[in-house]
Amino acid sequence: MHISRRSIEIEWGDCAPADIVYFPNYFSWFDSGLMHHFASVGLPKKELLARYGLTGWPLLETKARFMKPSTYGETVVIETEIVKFGRTSFDIEYRLKRGEEVAIECAERRVLVGRDAETGKLKPFPIPEEVKALFA
Amino acid sequence: MHISRRSIEIEWGDCAPADIVYFPNYFSWFDSGLMHHFASVGLPKKELLARYGLTGWPLLETKARFMKPSTYGETVVIETEIVKFGRTSFDIEYRLKRGEEVAIECAERRVLVGRDAETGKLKPFPIPEEVKALFA
Amino acid sequence: MHISRRSIEIEWGDCAPADIVYFPNYFSWFDSGLMHHFASVGLPKKELLARYGLTGWPLLETKARFMKPSTYGETVVIETEIVKFGRTSFDIEYRLKRGEEVAIECAERRVLVGRDAETGKLKPFPIPEEVKALFA
Amino acid sequence: MHISRRSIEIEWGDCAPADIVYFPNYFSWFDSGLMHHFASVGLPKKELLARYGLTGWPLLETKARFMKPSTYGETVVIETEIVKFGRTSFDIEYRLKRGEEVAIECAERRVLVGRDAETGKLKPFPIPEEVKALFA
Repeated sequence: MHISRRSIEIEWGDCAPADIVYFPNYFSWFDSGLMHHFASVGLPKKELLARYGLTGWPLLETKARFMKPSTYGETVVIETEIVKFGRTSFDIEYRLKRGEEVAIECAERRVLVGRDAETGKLKPFPIPEEVKALFA
Repeated sequence: MHISRRSIEIEWGDCAPADIVYFPNYFSWFDSGLMHHFASVGLPKKELLARYGLTGWPLLETKARFMKPSTYGETVVIETEIVKFGRTSFDIEYRLKRGEEVAIECAERRVLVGRDAETGKLKPFPIPEEVKALFA
Repeated sequence: MHISRRSIEIEWGDCAPADIVYFPNYFSWFDSGLMHHFASVGLPKKELLARYGLTGWPLLETKARFMKPSTYGETVVIETEIVKFGRTSFDIEYRLKRGEEVAIECAERRVLVGRDAETGKLKPFPIPEEVKALFA
Repeated sequence: MHISRRSIEIEWGDCAPADIVYFPNYFSWFDSGLMHHFASVGLPKKELLARYGLTGWPLLETKARFMKPSTYGETVVIETEIVKFGRTSFDIEYRLKRGEEVAIECAERRVLVGRDAETGKLKPFPIPEEVKALFA
């Protein structure tokens, strides 16, 4: 499906005392990659949530392999691809690249959720067909 | 007024390559100090917001002096005190202490806000007298 | 092997607009769980790095399942266990618990590294037997 | 003196449950504004530290006024200017702009530091004349 790319300038504060990126930041960048991915097909996250009365797309599972460290002053690129749509969940793959080299691979499963009007609890929401169509 | 204390264990990921705390984290700890401060008088933030239909207490101004750095593995204590209540805003002072030594001083002005039912915009909300009374 | 527990008070700033924890923070808490785990057997991270001239224990792989969301004002507990030591790498399992309920499971593989004196590059370092012995 | 500009796309994870930016992130962006500022005159932070054997430029004081909130999906611009060089410290002013509007003003004093070869403690380092000259 559609692949988007977003570049990230790595900051001093993204790194820990070992002088390399503190790894939870990679997950923030993947998260921003997904937001950018939706924007790249014309559907910013704010608009998606407003249009369908949704709350977000929390994570169900994630898995990542870290092949190369990065440090501040470097620029990396996040490649994002939704590889599968289920009924309420969807699978995403990210590659963090330094030039042509893949430094990190990540695969996530997320679910679209809204809040139940009565209980206030988060509950899965069927992914609209017109949303799926945007990434075909 | 009432002073509360909250201890913070400094983590590896709170520090940048200079091996000392990355300073924006201090502001997060002051923010959590304030949340803890309200909880310490029996009014957790979640309850405050729910009870009065509020959105939060965003910052209007802050000012901080950094006297001593800290690093991971250390435990510091945040002392929090509301020093003045205005009509919709309030002034807070924080001291970050390492043992008896004050390492950082911070003074903030915040405002209580809710969302306007019609416009959805944030607007100041008068601080309830019973809330002020909790800190006397 | 040895299991340690560390409790985390969830802060306002740990949460995103969906009112639940922004997930990269869970990885920070697991990271702090590991630091705490070493401290719980008498070997704080700072001391480990100084004693053997090491740089850190970066991640090679991670995998997590998110079963229940959490929000600010709640307290959760991170259970940490090193389940296997290799020559230079080690496997860790974390459980984030809300009361008796497991809300998140995470498995990581990390590697002990130092900087090569000549090239300055990170390279794997054999895990000392006396370090392994601490967790038996 | 020289003014640099850096744009920031605001992410979901930069915002707290009030749906606006969690304010400590602004300080991270100012910090990255300064790093970018040095890079904009041809002296990336990594190079500065390596060339003079330095550790960083920690904060001595900061002061900020927050006039307008921002939220995810928006792009803001950080304007950075060093307004004064002392012997070892320097003063910086930042403006966070949304279009033509100034949403936040911040003034910092920082100090250039290295580690004392014997004690390992951070100590002030005189700002090299050739560094000052870059911003004239």
